[in-house]
Amino acid sequence: MTDLPQFDLSADVLTLTRALVDAPSVSGAEEPLADAVEAALRGLGGLEVERIGNSVLARTNLDRPTRVVLAGHLDTVPIADNLPSDLREVDGVQRLYGCGTSDMKAGDAVMLRLAGRFGGPGGEPAHDLTFVFYDNEEVEAVKNGLGRVARERRGWLYGDLAILLEPTDGEVEGGCQGTLRARLETTGRRAHSARSWLGVNAVHGLAGALETLAAYQAREVEIDGLTYREGLNAVGITGGVAGNVIPDEASLTVNFRYAPDRDEDAAEAHVREVFADAIAAGATLTVTDNAGGAMPGLSEPAAAAFLAAVGRPARAKLGWTDVARFAAFGIPALNYGPGDPQLAHTRDEHVLVDRLRPAEDALTAYLSGSTA
Amino acid sequence: MTDLPQFDLSADVLTLTRALVDAPSVSGAEEPLADAVEAALRGLGGLEVERIGNSVLARTNLDRPTRVVLAGHLDTVPIADNLPSDLREVDGVQRLYGCGTSDMKAGDAVMLRLAGRFGGPGGEPAHDLTFVFYDNEEVEAVKNGLGRVARERRGWLYGDLAILLEPTDGEVEGGCQGTLRARLETTGRRAHSARSWLGVNAVHGLAGALETLAAYQAREVEIDGLTYREGLNAVGITGGVAGNVIPDEASLTVNFRYAPDRDEDAAEAHVREVFADAIAAGATLTVTDNAGGAMPGLSEPAAAAFLAAVGRPARAKLGWTDVARFAAFGIPALNYGPGDPQLAHTRDEHVLVDRLRPAEDALTAYLSGSTA
Repeated sequence: MTDLPQFDLSADVLTLTRALVDAPSVSGAEEPLADAVEAALRGLGGLEVERIGNSVLARTNLDRPTRVVLAGHLDTVPIADNLPSDLREVDGVQRLYGCGTSDMKAGDAVMLRLAGRFGGPGGEPAHDLTFVFYDNEEVEAVKNGLGRVARERRGWLYGDLAILLEPTDGEVEGGCQGTLRARLETTGRRAHSARSWLGVNAVHGLAGALETLAAYQAREVEIDGLTYREGLNAVGITGGVAGNVIPDEASLTVNFRYAPDRDEDAAEAHVREVFADAIAAGATLTVTDNAGGAMPGLSEPAAAAFLAAVGRPARAKLGWTDVARFAAFGIPALNYGPGDPQLAHTRDEHVLVDRLRPAEDALTAYLSGSTA
Repeated sequence: MTDLPQFDLSADVLTLTRALVDAPSVSGAEEPLADAVEAALRGLGGLEVERIGNSVLARTNLDRPTRVVLAGHLDTVPIADNLPSDLREVDGVQRLYGCGTSDMKAGDAVMLRLAGRFGGPGGEPAHDLTFVFYDNEEVEAVKNGLGRVARERRGWLYGDLAILLEPTDGEVEGGCQGTLRARLETTGRRAHSARSWLGVNAVHGLAGALETLAAYQAREVEIDGLTYREGLNAVGITGGVAGNVIPDEASLTVNFRYAPDRDEDAAEAHVREVFADAIAAGATLTVTDNAGGAMPGLSEPAAAAFLAAVGRPARAKLGWTDVARFAAFGIPALNYGPGDPQLAHTRDEHVLVDRLRPAEDALTAYLSGSTA
């Protein structure tokens, strides 16, 4: 990419999606794309625009009684030989292939279309609008642009409803589940395996914990009419010194995915309770990361109106997403985007072209107040 | 080492031990030492000598009714900054420090002393004698010099009793236990951990096998008055793809140390029976190595006479040793050496000087027929 990309926000959503995809923006290298997005938004004339690192923030200030925040990340995972974009018909269906098509430049394109529609003089949205285009979502959480905005410009995230345009295949997904990772470590005493009774086998010490996991009955809980299904799983296990040595250390890593009615402390307490026997027997449990989920908030009027605009029932979001950053401020937040989450991060990533307009149309109807 | 070592077999056993230790012979680099041993043995005039690689074989041919084989390896583990040898008094006890002192140049020195005593014209041993100094014991079994002799010159190993001068701290250790290693592998189906019910967790699939190991009651069995104690242990475990992925593969490595009344096939059958539930549930068990043990053979007249010469009760050898190579030919074989097995392979390796003469004296008494 040698030329600075330029975006014509009056172009159709497919054209805009292609233009975004063809402006590579792997995490950490979003600057040219952020520059172009910033320039396009400033050019509209009806938005307050601010730049924080490679995140671009824009909002209307029309004194509407409610405010809706639309958010999407600009970065992609590394390119897998799948740029520039390629529009192909497969089985009679138009698909746009390329890195970032589903995750989530199609969503960004919808946001830019909405900004073009409502962000100029006379745009007249039914709600005040905030657009958050942010960087570094696909890498370590500490770099996440939305997290930085939350720390440094919290006021920009305020609203009555936040909609994250991550790929959901056109479904409305409410809230998100939390995720906790912990390491359960056992210790023993090293010995030659020919005299194993002189040692204490740390791998054997994990037997009870694995039994517990194998027998674990995951909870299903209904919140706002959505069913969240939890899960507690081993995601890693390691132990062993040499083929003739009784191992004196072993480690089991577990991942607990928990419904948003538990907060982070409750989730940790639950995991400690599940492994109480192992801990009582001397194992140590260390929580290595813990990110709470987000309640779906579907009973909020702003969310209900949005659901009506989309015209489909909501479902529970099971993976963790950045909606939790809004939920941390008490803001109801939904996931809704045209991309396909199953294709994210794959070499074969693409978006179905006929998902783009329905997403744009549903959001346009909602934001213009024609449904609420 | 620039000069070829030369050995004076009339020197005392401590002097000989030091000379051997100060001729470095890490596995694969035994040639100069083997040359010197060969020259010393040929110089005695009463021995048939043969060289196979860096193994040196020597024997009397006096038509005695019985033959005793003495065996020791010439190689050492890598030097750990512990050469040349160092003679020091610690707590009033003389110790010779250095790589290979215990494992097993002290034993080799005793063998050379015995060769000097009985291998010249007029040596008059009560039994015909075979000396086997071999290479590459401390590395992969396929390189083992005694194994090569067994394959290429099997006749050289024949005898009524074999004595391996590996370190036993001056005790007679009968036979040895077998050792089997196997990998128990489970498979599953990969899935995102946020939707764990779409996957099958291969790590959880090891729960039953670990329970089995933790509850395993190892057998103790008495053979020829010696107690062998078995053991079945995890020596390694591994599994996991990423922190958010249900693992589709996991592997548990176990080591079964088994008494010499089981042969290799019986040992494998036992392990398969122990893990029958896991195997029935789809796990695969692969035996990666299996070396049978050796019966103590203490009821053999030659062994009984040797025990009488040493004047101490025998005990079971629990680790696997090269005595099993003799046992494979039906030859009773014992471990008996002046070194300390606990010090083998350590930086602090040493031998207690006052263990050298008793070993030499007991063997001299036995081989001269003064006790049997």
